[in-house]
Amino acid sequence: MEKLIITAALTGAEVTKEQQPALPISPEEIAQAAYDCYLAGASIVHVHARDQKGNPTQSLDVYKEIKEKIENRCNIIFQPSTGGSVYHTFEERRQPLELNPEMATLSAGTTNFGKDIFLNTEEYIEKFALEMKRRKIKPEIEIFERGHINNALKLEKMGLLGRPIHFDFVMGVPGAIPGEIDDLLYLVSHIPQKSTWTVAGIGKYELSLAVHAILMGGHVRVGFEDNIYFKKGELAKSNAQLVERIAKISLELGREVARPEEARKILNIGGEE
Amino acid sequence: MEKLIITAALTGAEVTKEQQPALPISPEEIAQAAYDCYLAGASIVHVHARDQKGNPTQSLDVYKEIKEKIENRCNIIFQPSTGGSVYHTFEERRQPLELNPEMATLSAGTTNFGKDIFLNTEEYIEKFALEMKRRKIKPEIEIFERGHINNALKLEKMGLLGRPIHFDFVMGVPGAIPGEIDDLLYLVSHIPQKSTWTVAGIGKYELSLAVHAILMGGHVRVGFEDNIYFKKGELAKSNAQLVERIAKISLELGREVARPEEARKILNIGGEE
Amino acid sequence: MEKLIITAALTGAEVTKEQQPALPISPEEIAQAAYDCYLAGASIVHVHARDQKGNPTQSLDVYKEIKEKIENRCNIIFQPSTGGSVYHTFEERRQPLELNPEMATLSAGTTNFGKDIFLNTEEYIEKFALEMKRRKIKPEIEIFERGHINNALKLEKMGLLGRPIHFDFVMGVPGAIPGEIDDLLYLVSHIPQKSTWTVAGIGKYELSLAVHAILMGGHVRVGFEDNIYFKKGELAKSNAQLVERIAKISLELGREVARPEEARKILNIGGEE
Amino acid sequence: MEKLIITAALTGAEVTKEQQPALPISPEEIAQAAYDCYLAGASIVHVHARDQKGNPTQSLDVYKEIKEKIENRCNIIFQPSTGGSVYHTFEERRQPLELNPEMATLSAGTTNFGKDIFLNTEEYIEKFALEMKRRKIKPEIEIFERGHINNALKLEKMGLLGRPIHFDFVMGVPGAIPGEIDDLLYLVSHIPQKSTWTVAGIGKYELSLAVHAILMGGHVRVGFEDNIYFKKGELAKSNAQLVERIAKISLELGREVARPEEARKILNIGGEE
Ligand SMILES: [Mg+2]
Ligand SMILES: [Mg+2]
Ligand SMILES: [Zn+2]
Ligand SMILES: [Zn+2]
Ligand SMILES: [Zn+2]
Ligand SMILES: [Zn+2]
Repeated sequence: MEKLIITAALTGAEVTKEQQPALPISPEEIAQAAYDCYLAGASIVHVHARDQKGNPTQSLDVYKEIKEKIENRCNIIFQPSTGGSVYHTFEERRQPLELNPEMATLSAGTTNFGKDIFLNTEEYIEKFALEMKRRKIKPEIEIFERGHINNALKLEKMGLLGRPIHFDFVMGVPGAIPGEIDDLLYLVSHIPQKSTWTVAGIGKYELSLAVHAILMGGHVRVGFEDNIYFKKGELAKSNAQLVERIAKISLELGREVARPEEARKILNIGGEE
Repeated sequence: MEKLIITAALTGAEVTKEQQPALPISPEEIAQAAYDCYLAGASIVHVHARDQKGNPTQSLDVYKEIKEKIENRCNIIFQPSTGGSVYHTFEERRQPLELNPEMATLSAGTTNFGKDIFLNTEEYIEKFALEMKRRKIKPEIEIFERGHINNALKLEKMGLLGRPIHFDFVMGVPGAIPGEIDDLLYLVSHIPQKSTWTVAGIGKYELSLAVHAILMGGHVRVGFEDNIYFKKGELAKSNAQLVERIAKISLELGREVARPEEARKILNIGGEE
Repeated sequence: MEKLIITAALTGAEVTKEQQPALPISPEEIAQAAYDCYLAGASIVHVHARDQKGNPTQSLDVYKEIKEKIENRCNIIFQPSTGGSVYHTFEERRQPLELNPEMATLSAGTTNFGKDIFLNTEEYIEKFALEMKRRKIKPEIEIFERGHINNALKLEKMGLLGRPIHFDFVMGVPGAIPGEIDDLLYLVSHIPQKSTWTVAGIGKYELSLAVHAILMGGHVRVGFEDNIYFKKGELAKSNAQLVERIAKISLELGREVARPEEARKILNIGGEE
Repeated sequence: MEKLIITAALTGAEVTKEQQPALPISPEEIAQAAYDCYLAGASIVHVHARDQKGNPTQSLDVYKEIKEKIENRCNIIFQPSTGGSVYHTFEERRQPLELNPEMATLSAGTTNFGKDIFLNTEEYIEKFALEMKRRKIKPEIEIFERGHINNALKLEKMGLLGRPIHFDFVMGVPGAIPGEIDDLLYLVSHIPQKSTWTVAGIGKYELSLAVHAILMGGHVRVGFEDNIYFKKGELAKSNAQLVERIAKISLELGREVARPEEARKILNIGGEE
């Protein structure tokens, strides 16, 4: 089995310092959290920027500052969000692509997101894919429902995706697919055979889906964007603490943890198609 | 196995006379098509209204006229759409409820719908359910993705749904769940045990999903809203022709076809909870 | 979708004339039934021989007589059983292979069979496969449980099977895998991608599994060996009546029925590997 | 989620001291291993006896000696095997039941077992169930294939099983169902809703199935009967080492480990039906 790629989703667009005091908000905090997660075993950092008031921003400048601060610390793969928050326009959401990061997320469909709607139209899914292809950015294709896989396969037919296609199953968002093991198997059974996949279990699903994925040959995303608890009723001390637990369990289960250079190879980042 | 309930989805919001010359548009045409489908074996008619130019309308008056014309012909269950078209507001979409029909559709989530978005926010899903409960209208809960089932179960926890909960799996909409047999099994495995369900296969999925459903104890929706062909490359002559084929196959497979009074009992329309 | 191959399983080892008066027993009856099924749409005939008292026999002479009588009538593919009955020894069971038929069944595992045991040891599964390979007989690999698929894949690794591997899912034997749609999907999902498969639903499962298979791209086996009824409580008049219904439904569902020459191509009988 | 019941399958019928030097063979060794596993977190010990040459025996006297030596050490649940080895007769296999142990295994079907056959006829499955009911022994129903579940449900219809029915999915025996996660889900989806289940993954499947089960609410069996390695290429030092790892992982995953008294309650041993 390939080594395990752990992604740290540090901040997200919705969590607040009130909910999770260790939430990294400023570029400095985010970069330091990325580095701590790198030390704990993460090879990708998934980044959402915040403005000085702590509100989500897709500002190019803020992403740029975060990217530089992270690169000064370590070689972890920088993966900005193009999902932004449910309040951002597509134009705002795409801005971090101008940094030509190695990776970026590409949300492949529309879904309820609790009381909100996470909007991803066919038109903009294609536009984002096209721009990522042009800039040689590896997309992490976010799947919230079954239909989103087919949306991704359309991109592939249009020649917009390199190999392997890399999916992120985001499971447990209220209003979208839940995170039971049969839901995961259902999604995994519908992606092309040589694809890679990671799973981001929301809230209570984070740990169980992560461990199922370790055993199944998938990869894992954890972090405050998805879940702020270490165990029921006990807040995690840091993003790194969540990463560290995954790395530890993976080793116990006989699966080694990938370092960033190994993750780049597994995902074929910067390689031939 | 219970008798088979066939729903005729006559018109929809998207098909045109250019695509399917036999599409019923005017109240008179719709009522006559409903009657023909009733004779062919349908016990429910799912109705979308059109204005005089053939464009989708959620006008109360037009629905009223259709309802009366149908009731003058037969006792088929009248089920107006509250989905309307992707261009209608929620307020427009809810108007047919004022007719206090026996049933109405209740779309339980948001999804891509080809190039468009079919928008159903948590707020309006609840509002529609509440109004249906108040008016004693039996909801047919439309499911386009896995998460929509959970949205419906939330309504159930809020006490807004009578028993049995009745689902309609709409499968094959571009951007939403496709219509393979494993997709159907996946959905069926996640609804409460004593629920009833029907399946509306879009396009090429219509006939195969219908026949799987007949064998599995589900119910079937067919009609021009979902599919305009009788076989590959051959337009259907009428909605009734599609209904008639389902009734015939069901009998061949040993399953009787429900008449409207029987469908009312199976769905517990007008009964105790 | 490929054309549908219908196999007629005329006699089996267990049914009696008392249970089903139209059961073909003598070579003459069996050959005539094979011909009637051929006319009704079958392209393979699965044969179990009986002795003059009507008991199952694996006698080479009787199989030889049946084979010749069938070949005098039509070009249907002759497929003798090497399963025989639960009372036959492996040596008895293998005898029909000496006729060098185009096909023969190869039971890939052991299972309870009601009060009996259907015994297939690893040793004899391999011996049968080896002899079929040597004689250029196409095996139809009978699967009664999940593990039997892996037994077959072992043969394939040993180089004993040509392509495509052809499976027969026998479903509904008391003590072995039942015949619900999810059982069928489970089996289908575990065979190599380019395999062909047919389904033999026992008793009440015959018709429903056949129709699911027609829709899914599988093939179908029917006949008195598996089921003696046309509908609940009504005996079938003949094997051909059961074949005819499958052919009719297949056409209604838009899938053509293969003639023997077409079946030979689909199964790669007599072709290159 | 209920606390985790860990069963230690110490010896089995097939492993030798040559393969695994720490294999407990004599009553004294077995009792000490049971105690060590108890200390490590096991609440059930699954026992196969061996004679003085180390060959499998179903001798009542040897089981009696083992039982007493275990009871002298701790209150772990003693569960003798009625499967014995593939060479034992049914009469030999049933002998440990005369000890009126709290539990015993009941193998619910026949299957290939590598080159051998593990034989369990309908007749003897019923006889064993009947005797266990008469002696108030809780059966752990061993499932090697899908059909075996239905065999068990027949016993339940005959009134031979108390509630909850307790299953043991033995997965990965060559010739029977393998041990991938979809195989496990398939089995779990077919047992009655309030059943309890444990999983015994054979060889390479032991650890992965155990961890999936911990997450899914099932229970776990480990030990030299099923697997002799701690990790690939590294023999386990003792049965207790395998138990200890499961207990540790379970705690990390937030699931507490049951002590024998708690296991008795979960399985309703000695309780009302
Ligand atoms: Mg959606
Ligand atoms: Mg078996
Ligand atoms: Zn994100
Ligand atoms: Zn509609
Ligand atoms: Zn046969
Ligand atoms: Zn055992």
